Amino acid sequence: MVQCSSLDASFAALSDATRRGVLEQLGRGDASIGALAGRFGMTLTGMSKHVGVLERAGLVSTHKTGRVRTCRLGPMRLDREAAWIDACRQVWAARFDALDTLVTGLAERQGERQ
Amino acid sequence: MVQCSSLDASFAALSDATRRGVLEQLGRGDASIGALAGRFGMTLTGMSKHVGVLERAGLVSTHKTGRVRTCRLGPMRLDREAAWIDACRQVWAARFDALDTLVTGLAERQGERQ
Repeated sequence: MVQCSSLDASFAALSDATRRGVLEQLGRGDASIGALAGRFGMTLTGMSKHVGVLERAGLVSTHKTGRVRTCRLGPMRLDREAAWIDACRQVWAARFDALDTLVTGLAERQGERQ
Repeated sequence: MVQCSSLDASFAALSDATRRGVLEQLGRGDASIGALAGRFGMTLTGMSKHVGVLERAGLVSTHKTGRVRTCRLGPMRLDREAAWIDACRQVWAARFDALDTLVTGLAERQGERQ
């Protein structure tokens, strides 16, 4: 299956609670699609679709042995997603700090006038 | 507009390069929808839709003065999204470390046999 490691694909993959749950579950150990379907109360077809979305985002890889398809984490590890969010939060924090300074300065000047 | 601060909504909002760009841009200062549309080479209608998605996720708020709708960051600040990704990466790191230890142990035992 073609893997797309873009932020678009990975954030879209994370936008579903079941898919986030699958990633958490696979963090505890590899699992077959059947086991994941059972754990999340879904059909095999439904879980296969979710796993497909995760696989195309590069967050999960699968291999088939006989009739069982086993899922594991990787090859992508959410590093780029974490980096993007962290960079964004740093810019925001700087902006909110600047606004705080501005508001504090205005309040002090207001106090001096009274 | 009703705000939905769920992880589903925020990760879906982040799954588009234009919307991520809008968040980066608003980190540098508030901007009207018209200015954002110009910057990203989009129609007002197209940009309004993107801003609507960000607003419903709580990542952007807007206010209208006359005919101009201005966008700013917040009230949500991607804290929950960062926390979810960080928690996930920690579990994964522990798992990958455990696998590394296992592989190293197997390699050492293999070396002792030779």
